Amino acid sequence: MSPEDARRAAPGRKRGRPPAGRETSGEPGARERILASARAEFAADGYDRASVRAIARGAEVDAALVHHYFGTKDQVFAAAVEGALAPAFAAPDLLAGGPRDGMGERLVRLVFSVWEDDRTREPALAVVRSAVNNETAAAIFRRLVTRHLMARLARDLDLPDAELRAELAVAQLVGVAMLRHVMRIEPLASEDPEALIGRLAPVVQQHLTGD
Amino acid sequence: MSPEDARRAAPGRKRGRPPAGRETSGEPGARERILASARAEFAADGYDRASVRAIARGAEVDAALVHHYFGTKDQVFAAAVEGALAPAFAAPDLLAGGPRDGMGERLVRLVFSVWEDDRTREPALAVVRSAVNNETAAAIFRRLVTRHLMARLARDLDLPDAELRAELAVAQLVGVAMLRHVMRIEPLASEDPEALIGRLAPVVQQHLTGD
Repeated sequence: MSPEDARRAAPGRKRGRPPAGRETSGEPGARERILASARAEFAADGYDRASVRAIARGAEVDAALVHHYFGTKDQVFAAAVEGALAPAFAAPDLLAGGPRDGMGERLVRLVFSVWEDDRTREPALAVVRSAVNNETAAAIFRRLVTRHLMARLARDLDLPDAELRAELAVAQLVGVAMLRHVMRIEPLASEDPEALIGRLAPVVQQHLTGD
Repeated sequence: MSPEDARRAAPGRKRGRPPAGRETSGEPGARERILASARAEFAADGYDRASVRAIARGAEVDAALVHHYFGTKDQVFAAAVEGALAPAFAAPDLLAGGPRDGMGERLVRLVFSVWEDDRTREPALAVVRSAVNNETAAAIFRRLVTRHLMARLARDLDLPDAELRAELAVAQLVGVAMLRHVMRIEPLASEDPEALIGRLAPVVQQHLTGD
């Protein structure tokens, strides 16, 4: 490997000199630890209260390394939450892959798979907690929800009011997530996921394809 | 009027000496100006970022007067938002006052009347923006929603799973408010209220009384 290839292969090196601190760039796992710490901080505190310093502390690296890898706090947020959520929302064929009258249930299952999975619940909480109070986070929420979810739904529906239908369906699921995971209102917070999917699927179907 | 009666009649005086500052207690309108300023601050910034100092500035009074009238920031929040919203949610006969198959539409209209009215939209935004990141505000949200809305709904429904039904119905309306008023996702954000009520009423009815 030439020195040039080695430089390209080492993540974080290409933007400049390694930062000072406990951790130098290239240490395996630092990047993933930073993303995990960022998801935990943003989920617990929301965008405004989370700090790059606290994210660095949680990842056991120097704050300079966080900036070195990801740039500004906005960019850390985007990398941490969008990187974790976009693949889940982009799961192929969940929406188009089946009969039209099963779209409601497939959409509900897709969204529940995000909230009920430990790896994606935290970034989802981070987006919701942050987006209500911060325009950067709200823009990421809109991008995630509109690009990854509503646009595909609307395309699959192929109806003149498809966008509004998709948004009302998603609103039902956003509201359930708010009361169940953010506000933790009982009995919704502890209800069995399959029981909820059974109640939500026909209602979401009604929004998507009902009269 | 005896001196004792006069003291009791003057709001704010009974807790002690008037505070120092631009405004002394008893000035007509100061109390209402503080509440209005608090609603605006909490709606714009959420609980954590809003400060008693900024609330006082908006009301053109001294911060000490805010504490004198209302106590802590928690108590200012509760007075400002719960005071504004509780009467709207407690509007009599909106839920029980009609046939059972019209409960869905009556509930949707009740919630829309809060969000579409300038006087209550701001405190409603304040609660939603604050409750996702702050436990004090979340407790007030739970109290407002559970005591004023879900408990009455569940009582009127008189079904074994009435609480869960009421929560799923309210979740639909919370989600619509999030996407329409907080995240401002189009076309939902600009859609005519009556068109939305027409789409939401059957879905909410399904949650409340459907199979």
